[in-house]
Amino acid sequence: MSDAANLFDQINQAGPEPSEMAKKHCAAVCVQDQPVAGKPFAVFVRVGGVPHPMENGHHIQFFDLFVEDLYVSRVSFIPLVNSPEATLYLTLAREGKTTLRVVSRCNLHGLWEGKRDVVVAAGVGRG
Amino acid sequence: MSDAANLFDQINQAGPEPSEMAKKHCAAVCVQDQPVAGKPFAVFVRVGGVPHPMENGHHIQFFDLFVEDLYVSRVSFIPLVNSPEATLYLTLAREGKTTLRVVSRCNLHGLWEGKRDVVVAAGVGRG
Amino acid sequence: MSDAANLFDQINQAGPEPSEMAKKHCAAVCVQDQPVAGKPFAVFVRVGGVPHPMENGHHIQFFDLFVEDLYVSRVSFIPLVNSPEATLYLTLAREGKTTLRVVSRCNLHGLWEGKRDVVVAAGVGRG
Amino acid sequence: MSDAANLFDQINQAGPEPSEMAKKHCAAVCVQDQPVAGKPFAVFVRVGGVPHPMENGHHIQFFDLFVEDLYVSRVSFIPLVNSPEATLYLTLAREGKTTLRVVSRCNLHGLWEGKRDVVVAAGVGRG
Repeated sequence: MSDAANLFDQINQAGPEPSEMAKKHCAAVCVQDQPVAGKPFAVFVRVGGVPHPMENGHHIQFFDLFVEDLYVSRVSFIPLVNSPEATLYLTLAREGKTTLRVVSRCNLHGLWEGKRDVVVAAGVGRG
Repeated sequence: MSDAANLFDQINQAGPEPSEMAKKHCAAVCVQDQPVAGKPFAVFVRVGGVPHPMENGHHIQFFDLFVEDLYVSRVSFIPLVNSPEATLYLTLAREGKTTLRVVSRCNLHGLWEGKRDVVVAAGVGRG
Repeated sequence: MSDAANLFDQINQAGPEPSEMAKKHCAAVCVQDQPVAGKPFAVFVRVGGVPHPMENGHHIQFFDLFVEDLYVSRVSFIPLVNSPEATLYLTLAREGKTTLRVVSRCNLHGLWEGKRDVVVAAGVGRG
Repeated sequence: MSDAANLFDQINQAGPEPSEMAKKHCAAVCVQDQPVAGKPFAVFVRVGGVPHPMENGHHIQFFDLFVEDLYVSRVSFIPLVNSPEATLYLTLAREGKTTLRVVSRCNLHGLWEGKRDVVVAAGVGRG
């Protein structure tokens, strides 16, 4: 009750020992290839390591993908038809470490964050 | 000039012998598996059979995926970072033929439609 | 039950004697001024002539505004905080009659259409 | 050149003496009434105190409205037809000071933030 209300007061995150709630809501962000600067790579996002319902009364509404704090993409879902997951294809211009961040929203449990550090390798012909 | 203006007056489609413009803008919609009623299947959408620019001044802004006329998902893109493509995962409840329809928008050339007929097989334990 | 399922099979519309369901879901589209070609005018959209709940378990998710079949704007809502209404500011280049069309989505009752015909007056210095 | 690139590396903000760039991109957020806890109030958002172009090659793509860090609404625009402004109607449950924050995106100049502190008065029948 008040717990559910509190979920709406923050962007929720999983701690080192995530709760069942966190497992169902935080996005897994998988980079399928080693990213190389200036080349597209696939990013698979699944909201919920444990599957989350996609019923009319309880579902994931969308996720937003960010590179650190910078908004990149929104993927919007509807219940019953969508699974709360998608693969996107990104190109990062710079080599080095960065963080892919996904904020998803559950209609009953608010905003949740998942993230993945990636190390972008130098592109061909650059040192 | 007036041609470009006309593009904004309609949802543009590819004819039987598509123009270079149509090839760059109509989405290819690929269903990777034979869909079965009640089971998720992957749908890969790429805007443009011929690659479309994703530059700040000229890019694909988003695509909307429909099952026939019914809205399912929007995927939003930003220039430079996104490729104008995504894989989504859908479940259709009913067997039989239906049409997946994608409407994408180019900031300079308006709305374009791509589609794919799919035949959904009967699910296990149903006739 | 099966009625609710049927709502998800179509874009629902209000007939000449709209049901309570239609009254709660079809958008009222109000144009506050006489539109003039080439000048911005305000469009007020309210989903539901009869107020619609905005609770976590039952709410309006978004509306899309079209000029005839052409997509213009999406406004996305969250329960509890948003009222399912917004004012947008549009400019139409051409004089004559056209139709503003709003498609909204309720998480429990699917897609609903509201529309408003508008007559755009000739702009200054045009015939 | 490199300046424009730098704009895409951050959420840009106006300083105490905002540049012409900042004036064109930061949203003005106007609360038309004194908000009262539990009652809807109107929020008018205009991207750019100085008007921003809405041309196909240069335009505001959308704005996202947040209450502090919590996402509330996205309003999406298209060039030529939309003005980059909208009025939304919000209800905040709690009295006290909070911040409405708007992040908008220009296709050529990236993400920009505008904000407005509001003090929500106690609702009727509450202390």
